Amino acid sequence: MSLKLLEQHFSFNGVQYKYSHFSEVLQCDMTFSIYLPSNKEKKEIPLTWYLSGLTCTDDNFSQKSGFQRLAEKYQVAVIIPDTSPRGDKVADDDAYDLGKGAGFYVNATQEPWAKHYQMYAYITDELSTIAATLVPNFSGKESIMGHSMGGHGALVIGLKNTARFKAISAFSPILSPSEVPWGIKAFSNYLGEDKTSWKQWDASELIKTTNIPPIFITQGTADQFYPEQLIETTFLKNAHANNVEVNYKKVDGYDHSYFFISTFLEDHFDFHNKYLR
Amino acid sequence: MSLKLLEQHFSFNGVQYKYSHFSEVLQCDMTFSIYLPSNKEKKEIPLTWYLSGLTCTDDNFSQKSGFQRLAEKYQVAVIIPDTSPRGDKVADDDAYDLGKGAGFYVNATQEPWAKHYQMYAYITDELSTIAATLVPNFSGKESIMGHSMGGHGALVIGLKNTARFKAISAFSPILSPSEVPWGIKAFSNYLGEDKTSWKQWDASELIKTTNIPPIFITQGTADQFYPEQLIETTFLKNAHANNVEVNYKKVDGYDHSYFFISTFLEDHFDFHNKYLR
Repeated sequence: MSLKLLEQHFSFNGVQYKYSHFSEVLQCDMTFSIYLPSNKEKKEIPLTWYLSGLTCTDDNFSQKSGFQRLAEKYQVAVIIPDTSPRGDKVADDDAYDLGKGAGFYVNATQEPWAKHYQMYAYITDELSTIAATLVPNFSGKESIMGHSMGGHGALVIGLKNTARFKAISAFSPILSPSEVPWGIKAFSNYLGEDKTSWKQWDASELIKTTNIPPIFITQGTADQFYPEQLIETTFLKNAHANNVEVNYKKVDGYDHSYFFISTFLEDHFDFHNKYLR
Repeated sequence: MSLKLLEQHFSFNGVQYKYSHFSEVLQCDMTFSIYLPSNKEKKEIPLTWYLSGLTCTDDNFSQKSGFQRLAEKYQVAVIIPDTSPRGDKVADDDAYDLGKGAGFYVNATQEPWAKHYQMYAYITDELSTIAATLVPNFSGKESIMGHSMGGHGALVIGLKNTARFKAISAFSPILSPSEVPWGIKAFSNYLGEDKTSWKQWDASELIKTTNIPPIFITQGTADQFYPEQLIETTFLKNAHANNVEVNYKKVDGYDHSYFFISTFLEDHFDFHNKYLR
């Protein structure tokens, strides 16, 4: 493992870092960002993962959300992976919702995607190992949040690793990828046409499991992708049938942008903080 | 005057707007952004101007600073002009520090710049008239802040209009443009080689005037452009000689980026708020 430090910036008393490294899992060079709070009190520091949406890199959340103020306030480290494998050798598509910038946090089984599109394994294994080395006084406690495609990713990763993540939250997540255009397109390509293989990557299926950590979701009513891509019906129905309590909150007038995320981010950090201490 | 609404986003209970319009002063189409707080208490709302630095548009501060939280907290409208005239007919230079994105908030007198590069007149006259129509319950009270080239702009505009602006603040401003490479290059081109014409656009000269409003400046010690472009010696010396008190604050380890601006933005809004009520 060889990390290259690309950037570091003082921010709200902590430091925002950006690294690159060669990923063995993805077989390409990747970047990620991580914020470390000041930890002036030398306490143990938990780690929150933030997964971004379609077309994003690790820079969008780092530069547009203002999360560093909250990470410092709550004394939590925050790691932001990229949204897909990268580089000239990686398969791509002209559309914004397939290929680079659209990894959907799955392990692809179909060509030409399978060689590089292993974002689930990258995040839960390789990048997790790296993250643990970067957080001084790491408490070992983790939580996960994300936006849109990254909200889907946060729910899938959190629900497949219920013992590991203490809290899961999402902004305008794709809750039923097997039912909506974005998800159907991505899953057909990455996983193939057999829809039984999709279930393990669909939050509306995974919500049927046990020992589920607390879940908090915020959805704007003026979101241009709601309800078509972000419909909550199946997810909430299955959660209810499984006696899982989901705090699904709609907020009037807010859209799909970082203006929306930044507005409600403190609610999410506050929620995570309850379960990370 | 014909305004075209390009974007609007709910943000921290208020609304972030982005408009375009044809500027008679600049003889080109321009964009600007303006945030209006919720004003749920129906009070009179003051207006703060934010002037951006080299290479920026109105989007940088709007998307990267997180200012909307503070504008809502303090119930102040915030307008963000672009940094130069725009469009194919506007003179430009290949360098990032001259031409488009580098208007330096002066009225150019030299060709090929004079036809369009009239940013001072645009902001203090034409855009001011527009702004006044967009702020409901406008109190008439204004203040101005900016970053780097925009810090120079905020000081120059504030010091040339001391009766109008109740407070002036700046992040890592160009304080003595006549003495530093960025300013010498811009002024030589826009104003010509006669340095006497530069004095009316140099904060270190304008600080010699009377009835100066309160001034607050924050400068990071790890700023890659400090001290070369941002040296404070002449400005503070002339302020002291004129019995003007300037709160010039250095902050350890911070650089020139929006990570720096966002960290200290609340201090600036708090400062402005004292003089806008």
